[in-house]
Amino acid sequence: MLRVGVVGTGMIGQDHIRRMTTVLAGVEVAAVTDVDAETAKRVAEGLPGAVVHGTGEELIADPGVDAVVVCSWGPTHEQYVLASIAAGKPVFCEKPLATTEGACRRIVEAEVAHGSRLVQVGYMRRYDEAYRALKAVVDSGRIGAPLMMHCAHRNASVPAHYEKEMAITDTAVHEIDMVRWMFGEEITATRVLVPRRSRNGGALQDPLILVLETASGAIVDVEISVNIRYGYDIRGEVVGEEGTAALGELTPVTLRASRQLVSPIPADWRERFRRAYDVELQEWVDSIAGGGRPVGPSAWDGYAAAVVSDASVAALRGGSRVEVTLMPRPDLYADAA
Amino acid sequence: MLRVGVVGTGMIGQDHIRRMTTVLAGVEVAAVTDVDAETAKRVAEGLPGAVVHGTGEELIADPGVDAVVVCSWGPTHEQYVLASIAAGKPVFCEKPLATTEGACRRIVEAEVAHGSRLVQVGYMRRYDEAYRALKAVVDSGRIGAPLMMHCAHRNASVPAHYEKEMAITDTAVHEIDMVRWMFGEEITATRVLVPRRSRNGGALQDPLILVLETASGAIVDVEISVNIRYGYDIRGEVVGEEGTAALGELTPVTLRASRQLVSPIPADWRERFRRAYDVELQEWVDSIAGGGRPVGPSAWDGYAAAVVSDASVAALRGGSRVEVTLMPRPDLYADAA
Amino acid sequence: MLRVGVVGTGMIGQDHIRRMTTVLAGVEVAAVTDVDAETAKRVAEGLPGAVVHGTGEELIADPGVDAVVVCSWGPTHEQYVLASIAAGKPVFCEKPLATTEGACRRIVEAEVAHGSRLVQVGYMRRYDEAYRALKAVVDSGRIGAPLMMHCAHRNASVPAHYEKEMAITDTAVHEIDMVRWMFGEEITATRVLVPRRSRNGGALQDPLILVLETASGAIVDVEISVNIRYGYDIRGEVVGEEGTAALGELTPVTLRASRQLVSPIPADWRERFRRAYDVELQEWVDSIAGGGRPVGPSAWDGYAAAVVSDASVAALRGGSRVEVTLMPRPDLYADAA
Amino acid sequence: MLRVGVVGTGMIGQDHIRRMTTVLAGVEVAAVTDVDAETAKRVAEGLPGAVVHGTGEELIADPGVDAVVVCSWGPTHEQYVLASIAAGKPVFCEKPLATTEGACRRIVEAEVAHGSRLVQVGYMRRYDEAYRALKAVVDSGRIGAPLMMHCAHRNASVPAHYEKEMAITDTAVHEIDMVRWMFGEEITATRVLVPRRSRNGGALQDPLILVLETASGAIVDVEISVNIRYGYDIRGEVVGEEGTAALGELTPVTLRASRQLVSPIPADWRERFRRAYDVELQEWVDSIAGGGRPVGPSAWDGYAAAVVSDASVAALRGGSRVEVTLMPRPDLYADAA
Repeated sequence: MLRVGVVGTGMIGQDHIRRMTTVLAGVEVAAVTDVDAETAKRVAEGLPGAVVHGTGEELIADPGVDAVVVCSWGPTHEQYVLASIAAGKPVFCEKPLATTEGACRRIVEAEVAHGSRLVQVGYMRRYDEAYRALKAVVDSGRIGAPLMMHCAHRNASVPAHYEKEMAITDTAVHEIDMVRWMFGEEITATRVLVPRRSRNGGALQDPLILVLETASGAIVDVEISVNIRYGYDIRGEVVGEEGTAALGELTPVTLRASRQLVSPIPADWRERFRRAYDVELQEWVDSIAGGGRPVGPSAWDGYAAAVVSDASVAALRGGSRVEVTLMPRPDLYADAA
Repeated sequence: MLRVGVVGTGMIGQDHIRRMTTVLAGVEVAAVTDVDAETAKRVAEGLPGAVVHGTGEELIADPGVDAVVVCSWGPTHEQYVLASIAAGKPVFCEKPLATTEGACRRIVEAEVAHGSRLVQVGYMRRYDEAYRALKAVVDSGRIGAPLMMHCAHRNASVPAHYEKEMAITDTAVHEIDMVRWMFGEEITATRVLVPRRSRNGGALQDPLILVLETASGAIVDVEISVNIRYGYDIRGEVVGEEGTAALGELTPVTLRASRQLVSPIPADWRERFRRAYDVELQEWVDSIAGGGRPVGPSAWDGYAAAVVSDASVAALRGGSRVEVTLMPRPDLYADAA
Repeated sequence: MLRVGVVGTGMIGQDHIRRMTTVLAGVEVAAVTDVDAETAKRVAEGLPGAVVHGTGEELIADPGVDAVVVCSWGPTHEQYVLASIAAGKPVFCEKPLATTEGACRRIVEAEVAHGSRLVQVGYMRRYDEAYRALKAVVDSGRIGAPLMMHCAHRNASVPAHYEKEMAITDTAVHEIDMVRWMFGEEITATRVLVPRRSRNGGALQDPLILVLETASGAIVDVEISVNIRYGYDIRGEVVGEEGTAALGELTPVTLRASRQLVSPIPADWRERFRRAYDVELQEWVDSIAGGGRPVGPSAWDGYAAAVVSDASVAALRGGSRVEVTLMPRPDLYADAA
Repeated sequence: MLRVGVVGTGMIGQDHIRRMTTVLAGVEVAAVTDVDAETAKRVAEGLPGAVVHGTGEELIADPGVDAVVVCSWGPTHEQYVLASIAAGKPVFCEKPLATTEGACRRIVEAEVAHGSRLVQVGYMRRYDEAYRALKAVVDSGRIGAPLMMHCAHRNASVPAHYEKEMAITDTAVHEIDMVRWMFGEEITATRVLVPRRSRNGGALQDPLILVLETASGAIVDVEISVNIRYGYDIRGEVVGEEGTAALGELTPVTLRASRQLVSPIPADWRERFRRAYDVELQEWVDSIAGGGRPVGPSAWDGYAAAVVSDASVAALRGGSRVEVTLMPRPDLYADAA
């Protein structure tokens, strides 16, 4: 039984605790902490045997904690991930790995210094059944070499605190990671096209189109529409030399009524990706139980996504194509992406 | 942590053990037994702390066993389920509940005498996402009262030991249970239509069409094709007064290649219903953990399915419509489908 | 330019006149007649050069008429078709060929006596792109021998004058002809299942399920729902030994809005089968222009559909399986069905 | 009966002649001409009563010709269209209207001087059932204002003489016209993205992505893949403020075989757009029969498409965004696009 300590017991922290407690096998929540001590205490009450720590560092140091899940506020990710590496404990860090390129780089360097992988970043698209099926078809060679990918990332709406650049840093970043993984290579340039504004977007520039280029020259367009009202919709089609492969419609039921054949569309990401979160965390637990190494998205993946995301924000501001420059990839991450 | 004892460690028993050990939360396998002691021993080796018992009765009596999962050969189900009831322990019994109507009836009577539900039968269609979505639409009233249902149950092939009547007792029995649950009422009559034989069916009468009638007069046709080669395909459309609702295509990926738009079809039931088995057992664990009662398919459901199945076999032999007669339904099962 | 005379200028007659005048190539309407002389006159006013005749017989005898289209009231079909045969002129007769088995038989006998095909019956499903594609797949052998077919024929509603048996004689008769053509063999038995009634059906027994058996033993189930409100929906899936082939969704546009992925469903048969009517009549014109013989549904097809339809009505009344007995098939129709 | 003269009896000319002779109503081919007199003569042999002219100008002057169809080599379009205008005869000109912006402008000016519409250009997408259904949904306002459109234009392969810029001038030009019509406004800027090359494209830069901007700021991306092997595939999705609308799959039949659910994909544009050509020409015939004016794509549409196409070629060569500048739109075309 893997004993996990959770740093940050806000909404996503509580969701991961629920998952580890009632959905997953082979894991238990042994300790929690939160900047708001009251919240941490209240969450711990539902967890028999769980300890409440005053700080993340204390929790990480607790010998009763085998591995760490970081769900705290983004700017604090760096310190908890670094502390986990220092303690030699596997750490699952919700995205983003860190909020600046420099912080990501420090994590990469710390992990390289440690000498083996400890860090996994929470990019859960890689665990979605449909994306995995899509990648399997692409990797099979049945469509020839992949030349392009068309993506759409649509939200029914976004909360009031959602700001302009979050369309890239918070929303498109999922596609940024997914594209690196799908094509198995780095993104080398980015550009942002700005269509006519939706009246539903308020002060936001909504929608946007991201245009990414990969090392082999593939081009990926990503529509980002975050107030499209009709539902949550994630689409992707990889175009190869001899065919294309696309995310399917995961339609559990179809309805014929009122002159329409209808398939329901999810309301939000929870509905669409619930299982992907479950699989993500179960595979993480399974990979590190018994002293193994994580095999999911690495610190390098977190770093690379951050750099592409920053470059895309620059492209949005500047209006033109921006090249992406990464530090040399350490050997530790030779298999990554 | 619910401690489960497994009676029968053959293929399906081992699959449930794997599930409880590596997929589900809140459960552990505490004891196993099998008519083949060697198999039981070998399976137990992979289960730290699990006890091997010489008989099912010993396992059921073990104070370290909170609940029982019966995966043994069909004809032995009755004895282990009755023993579990006698011991006052929740028991999950793989389908069929028992192999004769009389045996099912004895289980119902024993459970009624016990005074509360202990038995759950392994009809896992009720846990499938698509069937649940279908039932939700039907129950919502959006298609009006349900008048008909068109079903197909297709297997790519069946093993050599599969005999004529298994098309009903082993295959169509899933639809028999599903229809009772979907319409929320009993099946009152059955008939079997015999089309031209498939050359792939060998000595079998393959395919068959079952025609079921429910208490309200709804008619359900069920195509049973067990050697259709192209894959495993489960379909269902409920036709109501104002619309219809159908199982959707759960298509994770679509491929455009070689002049075709292609969606993959599952090879077998494992691929199609894997998640349904997971959900079924997790919900069973959750319902009985802490002394609760099972809420899934009951002994009554197992009994009713057996009676309809027997009547359908009689209809196949006799060639005409056969009415279904059930014993009066005990109050204990007032809520049952 | 083929000069056609139209007997019967009611709704369907006017529609065929519009078709021949504004849609089809190589044909013109040279003469019209109707039991209501005023209607015929008014229709002729829009047709430069068209003659109005007092009776169908006069029209048929008119040397300026090369071929006849019969759109009059069903009970009068026999006399106009027989008169056309007597005149040696090709005649396109809207379905049904005639309203009694005896009348159909007399037409068959007259045509056999004439010695070559002159009669075509208006079963237009055979001209529908989707049915043709379906038959092409079945005939290709890709699904093995066809063993079953599942059909549904759904109308949003039917007019007030629609009576009980019209569900068979007017509605299901399209499937009766289609099945003979699809399987290339005669229907040998029929039975009607009667589900729970729809509250939308008034005094009608609605829906019904027809169960047809073909000469080779294939079984075809046909759901007939004529007040299903949601739209006009025609479905069909042929189940073979190694696969199935089904009518596709002819979806010109899909809409994502209000949490739904929506494909529109036609309101009625005009919308669904408009093109099939065009193709039907164009191919008829093309086949007989220059003295050729019609190749579409023959008098034999009209006769056989009538016999199966009568047997189905008997099955509906009697509640049991009714065998279908046809007269020996004349050599003239060796290729039919 | 409209009497049409056809200038150019090559492949597409012969196809239009076949269409007017055997498919359409109310039209006949009265005269033909071709730069290769032998071809024209041979084609005329199959056309009873058709005259062969030595030149296009003679044909246009023939009083037995009511309207002209121009199917000759692109560089000759200007002269025949201008001659038709000079003769005051309606002229249907296959795309492109002319091969240079200057030539298009001269046609526009000649038609404006004439004072009423005579010219229609052969952009047949506007007559396709699916595009029309798509535009109807967009115009209905159900998706809110259109902000983006995602298109793909894929050919299985292109002939040997297909050169680099034809991907724009010959292929994408269909989308250029369609976008102007779909959005009801002019294209104001264009840019071309160049992905990794397909090994199937030989010396071509294949694929390309065109990025068009419209007057209201909508952005349209158009994937052009002309050697994608798997078939001919035309796709389009308009993204609005509250929903999206997309071209549907016009699937006449679906096949379940070999572990796949399969919908066929057309081999080429003939199969996909055959009906659109029929409708296009029938509507043209209907609009001008009896002295009416054409209502299809105008000389202005032909001019605008040429300017956007030229700008896109410049963008491909130069690598950056190119603005599109049109001459002021004459009142004659106030309703256009």
